[in-house]
Amino acid sequence: MSRIPVAVIGATGYTGAELVRLLLSHPDVELVELVGHSKAGKPVESVLPALAGMVPSGIEGGLVGAFDEERIARRAQVAFLCLPHGKSAESAVRLRARGLVVFDLSADFRIHDLAEHARWYGPHHAPELAPQAVYGLPELHRAALKTADLVAVPGCFPTATILPLAPLVKAGLLEPGPIVVDAKSGVSGAGREPGERTHFPETAEGFRAYKTGGSHRHTAEMEQELGALAGAPIAVSFTPHLVPMSRGILSSSYVRTKPGVDAARATAEAQALYAGSPSVAVLPPGSCPDTLWVRGSNRAHLSYTLDPRTGWMLCQGAIDNLVKGASGQAVQGFNVRIGLPEGRGISLPATWP
Amino acid sequence: MSRIPVAVIGATGYTGAELVRLLLSHPDVELVELVGHSKAGKPVESVLPALAGMVPSGIEGGLVGAFDEERIARRAQVAFLCLPHGKSAESAVRLRARGLVVFDLSADFRIHDLAEHARWYGPHHAPELAPQAVYGLPELHRAALKTADLVAVPGCFPTATILPLAPLVKAGLLEPGPIVVDAKSGVSGAGREPGERTHFPETAEGFRAYKTGGSHRHTAEMEQELGALAGAPIAVSFTPHLVPMSRGILSSSYVRTKPGVDAARATAEAQALYAGSPSVAVLPPGSCPDTLWVRGSNRAHLSYTLDPRTGWMLCQGAIDNLVKGASGQAVQGFNVRIGLPEGRGISLPATWP
Amino acid sequence: MSRIPVAVIGATGYTGAELVRLLLSHPDVELVELVGHSKAGKPVESVLPALAGMVPSGIEGGLVGAFDEERIARRAQVAFLCLPHGKSAESAVRLRARGLVVFDLSADFRIHDLAEHARWYGPHHAPELAPQAVYGLPELHRAALKTADLVAVPGCFPTATILPLAPLVKAGLLEPGPIVVDAKSGVSGAGREPGERTHFPETAEGFRAYKTGGSHRHTAEMEQELGALAGAPIAVSFTPHLVPMSRGILSSSYVRTKPGVDAARATAEAQALYAGSPSVAVLPPGSCPDTLWVRGSNRAHLSYTLDPRTGWMLCQGAIDNLVKGASGQAVQGFNVRIGLPEGRGISLPATWP
Amino acid sequence: MSRIPVAVIGATGYTGAELVRLLLSHPDVELVELVGHSKAGKPVESVLPALAGMVPSGIEGGLVGAFDEERIARRAQVAFLCLPHGKSAESAVRLRARGLVVFDLSADFRIHDLAEHARWYGPHHAPELAPQAVYGLPELHRAALKTADLVAVPGCFPTATILPLAPLVKAGLLEPGPIVVDAKSGVSGAGREPGERTHFPETAEGFRAYKTGGSHRHTAEMEQELGALAGAPIAVSFTPHLVPMSRGILSSSYVRTKPGVDAARATAEAQALYAGSPSVAVLPPGSCPDTLWVRGSNRAHLSYTLDPRTGWMLCQGAIDNLVKGASGQAVQGFNVRIGLPEGRGISLPATWP
Repeated sequence: MSRIPVAVIGATGYTGAELVRLLLSHPDVELVELVGHSKAGKPVESVLPALAGMVPSGIEGGLVGAFDEERIARRAQVAFLCLPHGKSAESAVRLRARGLVVFDLSADFRIHDLAEHARWYGPHHAPELAPQAVYGLPELHRAALKTADLVAVPGCFPTATILPLAPLVKAGLLEPGPIVVDAKSGVSGAGREPGERTHFPETAEGFRAYKTGGSHRHTAEMEQELGALAGAPIAVSFTPHLVPMSRGILSSSYVRTKPGVDAARATAEAQALYAGSPSVAVLPPGSCPDTLWVRGSNRAHLSYTLDPRTGWMLCQGAIDNLVKGASGQAVQGFNVRIGLPEGRGISLPATWP
Repeated sequence: MSRIPVAVIGATGYTGAELVRLLLSHPDVELVELVGHSKAGKPVESVLPALAGMVPSGIEGGLVGAFDEERIARRAQVAFLCLPHGKSAESAVRLRARGLVVFDLSADFRIHDLAEHARWYGPHHAPELAPQAVYGLPELHRAALKTADLVAVPGCFPTATILPLAPLVKAGLLEPGPIVVDAKSGVSGAGREPGERTHFPETAEGFRAYKTGGSHRHTAEMEQELGALAGAPIAVSFTPHLVPMSRGILSSSYVRTKPGVDAARATAEAQALYAGSPSVAVLPPGSCPDTLWVRGSNRAHLSYTLDPRTGWMLCQGAIDNLVKGASGQAVQGFNVRIGLPEGRGISLPATWP
Repeated sequence: MSRIPVAVIGATGYTGAELVRLLLSHPDVELVELVGHSKAGKPVESVLPALAGMVPSGIEGGLVGAFDEERIARRAQVAFLCLPHGKSAESAVRLRARGLVVFDLSADFRIHDLAEHARWYGPHHAPELAPQAVYGLPELHRAALKTADLVAVPGCFPTATILPLAPLVKAGLLEPGPIVVDAKSGVSGAGREPGERTHFPETAEGFRAYKTGGSHRHTAEMEQELGALAGAPIAVSFTPHLVPMSRGILSSSYVRTKPGVDAARATAEAQALYAGSPSVAVLPPGSCPDTLWVRGSNRAHLSYTLDPRTGWMLCQGAIDNLVKGASGQAVQGFNVRIGLPEGRGISLPATWP
Repeated sequence: MSRIPVAVIGATGYTGAELVRLLLSHPDVELVELVGHSKAGKPVESVLPALAGMVPSGIEGGLVGAFDEERIARRAQVAFLCLPHGKSAESAVRLRARGLVVFDLSADFRIHDLAEHARWYGPHHAPELAPQAVYGLPELHRAALKTADLVAVPGCFPTATILPLAPLVKAGLLEPGPIVVDAKSGVSGAGREPGERTHFPETAEGFRAYKTGGSHRHTAEMEQELGALAGAPIAVSFTPHLVPMSRGILSSSYVRTKPGVDAARATAEAQALYAGSPSVAVLPPGSCPDTLWVRGSNRAHLSYTLDPRTGWMLCQGAIDNLVKGASGQAVQGFNVRIGLPEGRGISLPATWP
């Protein structure tokens, strides 16, 4: 099979840079366009210094390109969009119109219900395109991904949260009632734009929550996907925290299970659901997944623990927010869409320690 | 008032070192004995290098001393015990027998119900002394501390958890049902003994839970104190996590409040309860306390946030585990016991950033 | 003695915040004005969250003030300027004109030779005031500080570098030739303004030099002070590095000593020179000072090591860049100027670990 | 070409784990034996948790094996030794006797002069084998590696130091005199065994030198390789430092160049020498390589900067100590030895940020 020509739009942010890292070593991909906005025209090496001496020859002049849909359509068959919410939808419309398969890493196409989308994100920027979109969590939507031309790559927190909860919800093992999700993320999740709260001296040696009170937009994805599995609405109370580390998410969900459902049963359900999923490892009951064990990899480590005194079950998921939580998951969806083995180019273990 | 001669037993671990730091600058204290076990006989400067050139002249030869109850009783009026659980009780018996006022930073005297103590810690090592002990959280037990001769200094997680929950429990604002406590601690909480999971390369860039399933012993303290305030048993499902930072605890409790109880009401209750407490700051509703804001200080920052969609209220407490969570709190209790202003010697703000 | 009323101008940056922390617990100081620029009018607690519940009553309304020289002169006797280079000189002129004693933490008055100043910083903003200024390193200029009305508080790198080199230079123990200074700083040295290279994800897990090629302005201070001690010009090739930590500087200078001068001799010279200096500890020959051992303190740890195979002597100095490298040193100079014990209010050991 | 069966001896330490990571995704390698010592018999997943669900089927029972030279020789053609110095030589003898090609990541065979070896490491454990060994820095010894059956994989500090210095030494551009090497390493370089100085709380927020005074053994490698290039002895005064990060080395060498040799000339020499070297990027003069830019990759970033005022030239090299400084370099040497493209399986860019 010849290499598939691919464009990365928004290549100079963190998810863009991570996509470039992964696609550079993907044996079936040829990177032909690295598009930026404010950094268009600059040498790729100066913007992404890890690429010193490694910029592929297909990148014209070794420069970050400007967004030119004609040129992109002429050169690439697949486009990955690493753009801010809102801008992404507009680019998707233009690239879909020229026939490209689009993987959108923004939230623009993740929420199927446009009213729900509007509630969290404001009016949709491409409502006509929204029905095409497939929610790109391969573990749950593998079949639909095989023919998808517009893929909404899931958010980082939803990925780490939905994966451990899905087996329980699907099997109907939970008591009703809103789920408590206490999730913790490394700082790269905030993106490349510097700010006061991600300035090193105010982040190192500090731990804090943010967007409390159920106000984080990723709530919508969690409720959509879990509700679809349950066949009924499921409410999620989601609180994100910032960890003084660069990469990684640990999501801790607290649920009440139906009588007799213990950690072994939950583990067995997860093992069954993810039996054919190369990116998921279900650890033994009572394990404590560590974000370091998945850093730099497209792996998700899941585990289940029951507190027998109180009846609360802890459902944990650990991922690298930039890989399984963003760019690696996009490549995984790409592999499914193209008909490649699902783990192609993204099967390395974590860079540990 | 002349200076009170004080001994620190177990001065070479982290809580011991922190006590030394605080007591060195306490205007009403004279440090006369620094006692160690495996490091007895070594120069204090070699064991606690931050003290280079600063070891007080009262420390004979500038050396870490061995445990010699006669000598300690002859030289000191107050002893702080920074010893492992179990060993502490034995030393307390010997020092109390010689009339010293004892502040025990271990868990040996924290649990009043000896059966409950045995359940979490095994048989008590000094059951005859246990009834004397006062649980040394000044914000809740100020009156009892004024005459206490044996003070059980609270654990770090319980301090960060009880402080925000106490106002709600005391005022009867919570619905019944086990409370979810998801707490996060810096690594110094694990003590000075190196181990695989606190080895830098396996801790930096990693985040994980530990002692899950309700197995952490600090649960007992939380249930004792909250139950006493409620006048009825309260169950706590407590999950600790390790944060890649040296100091700090953020405790996030998820509770269900009675109808009409919102974050403003919770905040008002806390402000009322802690009105005379110099170590507690109640932040405005919806604030996100940061461990960095209290690092190195004896402060506790509390806040309350309601998720209106799901009804879960988040009660957060941030402290420095070695100060308000251990040694600073011990000094605070000492001040109350001696009749000094509660904040004497421990009123610096955090070392920020 | 009644408390001396003090104003901090530029109180919302890192050196300002650190001054506030230290002055709040200084027994002979009353903080009466906290002045900011872009943050004037905001509650101090919102800008410096570590002060929640601790803003002194002397601060009107608990608000950051605007720069108003009349008001400052009416309320304060001493002003500490934590302003950007250039702006500081202008404020100093106005406050000196009203009789305040000024401690300037910028570089505006550090370089006595105005041509040399211009070479590194451009034309001087207050050349008429420059001759008044005393270089505020108490260990070298204690006598002059006692009557100084304008003190140029030394830079962080120069402090960590000059302290270990001064004894050797003063005693004439070095061979001629430019000194190699390889220094490493925590990120707080870059100030509170966020930027790409101090953004957490691009700083954690990274180590790099900056301003290489002898271009860092602190070179001028080093050469001025060492040259004055030598009575002849001394050239310094200074290379700063950024360490993924918040606070601390380790300066490593490589020098060639005269025949027979070993580490023991160097250590002895330093002990002699700093015998009356409460902020300096000279460690035994061959020691390796650690920035963690001085973090949060006004201490400088020095050491000397000779590589006998090659003849290079390593002279190390470790400080906290915000304390002994800035705000603590300013307070130390203030103590000398006022006639207080030199260590008043700044004699705590490091917050270790 | 069929896959080459490979054994990793000492697979449970950091360099072993890193080799496993790299070899798992190497298209021409089949991992058949993972041998440990104290952890033999344990599941690989429990010792190397990043491999959960990824242990190759060739590893019998998914268990860490014991050292059994017969079994290893029967199953593997190539062995990588990640053993402590001294033990490595003994294993090398036994595996070479059975015909395996051996890559030794210890220092046992790096120093060709046995007297020099003895001076730094004590008596050699396999002097009869030493003459066979090739120093496995492909950039300097590519030709010899093609037929080597025993490869001494270079140390981490020497790799980061020799690469930038070699072009200048080889071209005769340096003035005589001992070179100052001030190098900084992440903590993983200390290995997996926990200790007091690598315990998280005493490492985070601290920076310090260690093994000062020219006592670090890696000095011998630097002097051997640079001396060979110069055709005359070159002395190195090497001082290592510990950086609070997991991975990465930045080596800063200070040299005096011959008249007229500036950074542009040095850069040109390096570009010429490393023109065919896929792992080396020579950055423009005055650049500041960052360890983050090479983290997780087999890349070395080099740069040259002249301080025109003092004549000191700074020669910097940045690598990941576990990849280009150990396991990646071993794979690079393996590729050369086997006749594969030099970058096979190790050509990913850094995991940035």
